[in-house]
Amino acid sequence: MVEWTVSTMLESDMAHAFISGSNKDMTATDTQKNLVYFVGKQCPRRCSVEQYAIALAKKFVEEYPKVSKAKVWVEQAPWERVFVNGKPHNHGFMQSAPATRTTYVEVDDKGNVNITSGLKDFKVLKTTQSGYEGFLHDQYTLLPDVRDRIMATSVTSTWKYTGVVPDYDAAYNAAKAAIVDAFYGPPDKGVYSPAVQTTLYQMANAVLDRVPQIGSIFFNMPNLHFLPCNPVTSKFDNDIYVATSEPHGNIEATVTRQSVQPHCKL
Amino acid sequence: MVEWTVSTMLESDMAHAFISGSNKDMTATDTQKNLVYFVGKQCPRRCSVEQYAIALAKKFVEEYPKVSKAKVWVEQAPWERVFVNGKPHNHGFMQSAPATRTTYVEVDDKGNVNITSGLKDFKVLKTTQSGYEGFLHDQYTLLPDVRDRIMATSVTSTWKYTGVVPDYDAAYNAAKAAIVDAFYGPPDKGVYSPAVQTTLYQMANAVLDRVPQIGSIFFNMPNLHFLPCNPVTSKFDNDIYVATSEPHGNIEATVTRQSVQPHCKL
Amino acid sequence: MVEWTVSTMLESDMAHAFISGSNKDMTATDTQKNLVYFVGKQCPRRCSVEQYAIALAKKFVEEYPKVSKAKVWVEQAPWERVFVNGKPHNHGFMQSAPATRTTYVEVDDKGNVNITSGLKDFKVLKTTQSGYEGFLHDQYTLLPDVRDRIMATSVTSTWKYTGVVPDYDAAYNAAKAAIVDAFYGPPDKGVYSPAVQTTLYQMANAVLDRVPQIGSIFFNMPNLHFLPCNPVTSKFDNDIYVATSEPHGNIEATVTRQSVQPHCKL
Amino acid sequence: MVEWTVSTMLESDMAHAFISGSNKDMTATDTQKNLVYFVGKQCPRRCSVEQYAIALAKKFVEEYPKVSKAKVWVEQAPWERVFVNGKPHNHGFMQSAPATRTTYVEVDDKGNVNITSGLKDFKVLKTTQSGYEGFLHDQYTLLPDVRDRIMATSVTSTWKYTGVVPDYDAAYNAAKAAIVDAFYGPPDKGVYSPAVQTTLYQMANAVLDRVPQIGSIFFNMPNLHFLPCNPVTSKFDNDIYVATSEPHGNIEATVTRQSVQPHCKL
Repeated sequence: MVEWTVSTMLESDMAHAFISGSNKDMTATDTQKNLVYFVGKQCPRRCSVEQYAIALAKKFVEEYPKVSKAKVWVEQAPWERVFVNGKPHNHGFMQSAPATRTTYVEVDDKGNVNITSGLKDFKVLKTTQSGYEGFLHDQYTLLPDVRDRIMATSVTSTWKYTGVVPDYDAAYNAAKAAIVDAFYGPPDKGVYSPAVQTTLYQMANAVLDRVPQIGSIFFNMPNLHFLPCNPVTSKFDNDIYVATSEPHGNIEATVTRQSVQPHCKL
Repeated sequence: MVEWTVSTMLESDMAHAFISGSNKDMTATDTQKNLVYFVGKQCPRRCSVEQYAIALAKKFVEEYPKVSKAKVWVEQAPWERVFVNGKPHNHGFMQSAPATRTTYVEVDDKGNVNITSGLKDFKVLKTTQSGYEGFLHDQYTLLPDVRDRIMATSVTSTWKYTGVVPDYDAAYNAAKAAIVDAFYGPPDKGVYSPAVQTTLYQMANAVLDRVPQIGSIFFNMPNLHFLPCNPVTSKFDNDIYVATSEPHGNIEATVTRQSVQPHCKL
Repeated sequence: MVEWTVSTMLESDMAHAFISGSNKDMTATDTQKNLVYFVGKQCPRRCSVEQYAIALAKKFVEEYPKVSKAKVWVEQAPWERVFVNGKPHNHGFMQSAPATRTTYVEVDDKGNVNITSGLKDFKVLKTTQSGYEGFLHDQYTLLPDVRDRIMATSVTSTWKYTGVVPDYDAAYNAAKAAIVDAFYGPPDKGVYSPAVQTTLYQMANAVLDRVPQIGSIFFNMPNLHFLPCNPVTSKFDNDIYVATSEPHGNIEATVTRQSVQPHCKL
Repeated sequence: MVEWTVSTMLESDMAHAFISGSNKDMTATDTQKNLVYFVGKQCPRRCSVEQYAIALAKKFVEEYPKVSKAKVWVEQAPWERVFVNGKPHNHGFMQSAPATRTTYVEVDDKGNVNITSGLKDFKVLKTTQSGYEGFLHDQYTLLPDVRDRIMATSVTSTWKYTGVVPDYDAAYNAAKAAIVDAFYGPPDKGVYSPAVQTTLYQMANAVLDRVPQIGSIFFNMPNLHFLPCNPVTSKFDNDIYVATSEPHGNIEATVTRQSVQPHCKL
């Protein structure tokens, strides 16, 4: 059981609909919607978001000569099979996956296929092994250097496949595991983060190392702030923090293999 | 590490502030906020949302003679300790808990303490072992009887503790496990649900059976619809469903032990 | 043209559905939904949310003997007829109303009809003529007294009609105008607010004065904070404020005519 | 009184922070935030979002040699001065503007300044003078041709200024008025829309006609569907529609003057 939210957008030679008011040859929203279900029905019993999105985008380009490019986005809701008494349940699912899996596929009428997959809403936190020092201090700077802080973010990542992928589910799981390992470090000691930027780069490197078919990877990592709190009549002792979203920093970058073009933020 | 969102509301003899414009004796929002942190700092290293909320509500009533009742709500963000290489990480957390834990505590100036705990945003689904038949059919009814359907809901529950609770974390875990077991049934075959109402009642019974300190339990369970889809040129074959939130049914009820007063929906 | 979001809930003698799994005599969600449209079609060309909600609730109670009470909520989207070249447009509308109109109607099988109407998401602000002084100061208080501040809130109000209302649209408009007049005061000088509480009470009084059919009125008014800001290298001069929602105060009260029972927060 | 939400992003030669963990020369989030307020304080009493965003972006580039490009986004909350008794209130505001005003400014270290302004969340509707006919019909198409329907959308638009703008507020008001006039048509008869695409193009043309400094304009216009409803036991008679957001079409295009490069969707 998978639950997918599918978006489609077609590029086609439809200037006449804008300029003259004729809808001739236009693939209506309704037709696009119906094909979303139709192609779903053609899929094999086990089907990754990438396989489905490729099939749907190809169908648009093949079926409609005016369409020069089809774009398909799919988001997979975080359902996971539930375990009851330590056993996987025959037909029970729970929304317990910590991230939403995504893909974005473009197919054009020349046969080019671009596949950019990723994840979003992946909230991670570590209570120590994070600092921020040595940045530029001038008359506009109030933030002091700090060697120990809470680091938390909601990871959004998209990666572009530039090689042939034998198994998209395996590639997704390997990329996600690489992100986890680089963010947290070993279970006993963790790994020190001198800046969100450095951690982002280590996460990107880990993914490129483990999944050779990925050529370029983008990360957006907002700084979810937990600010030290001095309760009245007492002092901060690494105990009480104020979680705040206003305002916050946002670090993003694309890391790309040599010889590969970086892909755009979606 | 826990992340709590705390809300407080005070009932006090403050009619003069409304009527005459005098703020004499008013416990300002700022003071309430500062006490939220101050009482947090007094807490033991491991502290349940209930222990904290009771301490905070008592502090308001004891500190401010005009306050006749203090109400405290706490929601615990779904952070869980992360496992890396199969081991619990020393300082790493991930937002992977499938539900948000809640509590609501009232303390009045006569020493009464009411504790109503619960969970929300707990999304559960089963792909079969659910039907809906034999309901009233008249000229306003279009829905056919059905013996097999997807059943999905986002569970909100609040339960009132009427007995002395030795360990609030244990009570929460037992209540949540009872809800899971009653919703899904055994891992091999599940349990048939003839209506959301029946499943709700079984969940309530399971909680009351396993946690004797709970006197009354409320459930709100919206029907998250997955509608059978007939893709163009083909037929529904238990394969493609349309997930929709517009419109949806919403089933709720409070189940109470004999001799206990039902508690209100919060 | 009006756009309404309608919610319905039925109280009925359906314990058997919860306990025994029989759905006998149950008015399904689907049937309720179909009646929402059916009763809409019966309405006169101009129809207030109150007229509609009463008709729908009565229909449920009359049609279904097991239903002891029907509850209907209606929210009206803030569409307003657009003016083009200073003239009302024949068929054009814009979402420019500053508040969402609401109603909640209960009808029971004994013929009792309760009507509670109101508004929500009504965002109002004044840049001066607001202060907050003389409240309780103790060791937990950091907020200083202030005689000039920005006051802003998002008003939610519900009022219960206890008299016969000849025209619900006129009553709504009169109540809303009373709220506006009491919040802002005269256009040249405004009116000083010593606390949100006082302003809330004046708004309530103004509504009760102008609309005699309203017996009781509830307000919820969160304090939307605009905090004085001292930009680096300079001082606050009533010029730069930080708009923040974390955390905020929330003032609420019900004001009721003598001899009328206060109505509950919905 | 204006309320602005400001976002800033800097492009700078900071690869070392990602790769080596050194934060040398990094303009921290905190410093950026402090400059948001500082530059606000330098602004004249009346200041458009564009003037402010240009000043802030220039400040970043001038102050910090490593910064090669500064990007600033500003959104203006829809506060409008309130009228009481037909007179503008001295200090009262209400959130009654039907759209949020936006700007996005880029300044680079070579002195290039790009200004892209716009609006969003602008909800417009007409109950007639809209149809959709003559589009492609094949075996995947269920939608019938229709000559009369409700047309509603939430307009997002961004336009790039390619000429010198003497008054940004006037330019914004002129662009918004052009959008309104083209969407609704004359107040007595309106204007027929054969497709959202045609209306979008007419709106774009109207803006380019009236505001010569705008070189390129982008529109995103989701189709907010109101579907004809056949209540049980009766027929659709242009009276009852079902408002639904699932699923919906989304039309977008950029219209550009000859000799001007189209600007990207932001």
